[in-house]
Amino acid sequence: MIMNIKELIANDRFAKYNGIELIDVSAGSATAKMVIGPNHLNGVGIVQGGAIYTLADLALAAASNSHEVTAIGLTSNITYFKAEKSGILFAAAREISLRRTVATYQVDVTNQNNELVASFQGTVYRKP
Amino acid sequence: MIMNIKELIANDRFAKYNGIELIDVSAGSATAKMVIGPNHLNGVGIVQGGAIYTLADLALAAASNSHEVTAIGLTSNITYFKAEKSGILFAAAREISLRRTVATYQVDVTNQNNELVASFQGTVYRKP
Amino acid sequence: MIMNIKELIANDRFAKYNGIELIDVSAGSATAKMVIGPNHLNGVGIVQGGAIYTLADLALAAASNSHEVTAIGLTSNITYFKAEKSGILFAAAREISLRRTVATYQVDVTNQNNELVASFQGTVYRKP
Amino acid sequence: MIMNIKELIANDRFAKYNGIELIDVSAGSATAKMVIGPNHLNGVGIVQGGAIYTLADLALAAASNSHEVTAIGLTSNITYFKAEKSGILFAAAREISLRRTVATYQVDVTNQNNELVASFQGTVYRKP
Repeated sequence: MIMNIKELIANDRFAKYNGIELIDVSAGSATAKMVIGPNHLNGVGIVQGGAIYTLADLALAAASNSHEVTAIGLTSNITYFKAEKSGILFAAAREISLRRTVATYQVDVTNQNNELVASFQGTVYRKP
Repeated sequence: MIMNIKELIANDRFAKYNGIELIDVSAGSATAKMVIGPNHLNGVGIVQGGAIYTLADLALAAASNSHEVTAIGLTSNITYFKAEKSGILFAAAREISLRRTVATYQVDVTNQNNELVASFQGTVYRKP
Repeated sequence: MIMNIKELIANDRFAKYNGIELIDVSAGSATAKMVIGPNHLNGVGIVQGGAIYTLADLALAAASNSHEVTAIGLTSNITYFKAEKSGILFAAAREISLRRTVATYQVDVTNQNNELVASFQGTVYRKP
Repeated sequence: MIMNIKELIANDRFAKYNGIELIDVSAGSATAKMVIGPNHLNGVGIVQGGAIYTLADLALAAASNSHEVTAIGLTSNITYFKAEKSGILFAAAREISLRRTVATYQVDVTNQNNELVASFQGTVYRKP
């Protein structure tokens, strides 16, 4: 099963194209990583919100698809706390609610000094 | 002023790298566009949530920086309605509240048939 | 059908206890009203966020239960724009997406001068 | 200082009218409590979303006003996991980010068996 998630994530071309990789996944949780490069920056030279969101969303996708049921993103929110220009970002997703057709995950995005950069919460729809 | 926004957005390397472009901006509103390509897809072959979010976020950035005050993303939420595999996506941002230090924007993401693909709402912090 | 919604809402003791009433409902939309009184105020004398949220949530409940399918709140967000101390608040809900098992509504909360007080967006789960 | 917060909360007429009370507050965190009664229920006999939101919002108000700076709610989101009909609900707020003009809090709402009923996240504006 975990193999399949890894394949699902490995086939995520948007994540791969943007240098985002899955580094860990287990039942209900996952961690993704992004080494900040020039292509992640916005017009004022800090990491674009979309890059941080995508990193968090990949962790969500892996965590929510870890139960042998296909899960698709329904709704999510993100709040930004720190602007980053370089270094490494990590997104750690953990399940806070699992029901038959919906599940919710908290994803903390941190930098290499373990400072909180953003908080993301996502709810997925689980295909019966 | 609008010239400066266009430069700000033109310098957004993450958006440019992902094929997202600004097509219109005026005081408090903006429209961005993304022609869906293979690098926008996720592991199951539909447009990745992060790509849709980034498109919406670029429209937010342009609309919120259209008032000669620097605006930075504080928090946002997105809800997905339709999965897309090809075609063109548009994100239209409009201001729903403007105060001295915060402002909020509604961004509708539609496909080329003008069907709603996602709804995004973002609040920015405006630097005094 | 609309009769049943009106009963459902009329039986909402929390809304009734707080002076919130449904004034209109049709397929996919609804409007609720609250005349601001002393019991709606918080410690600094403005309408409590929870009162505004409850008003919006009642409009959501009516609009989302207008299709002969039971709908229950899954997730919602609210952003506040104006502090009110007296007068009348209205919440107008409209459907922006309807699918088999989930639906999403935008609810605008306005005062008696038709100024936007808050924006609420809610997603419901529809029982098959 | 904490005395002042307690007064601020004690003067919250909406919370008091709905049987919500603050049971603990310290710098950056707070806990509120609500004993479920008939007036908290909606039309199908479960606790109304607005009641749960108000409970969480009161914990947010106490936690965010614990730093000798006035904080007002800007935006928040809530996701519901469990329907409750009776018993006691608790809302525990903790600060996840504190900056000069904005701060963000995670509020977990649990029942008397310590099961997660809802997750709330709120961002406040801090008056300089």
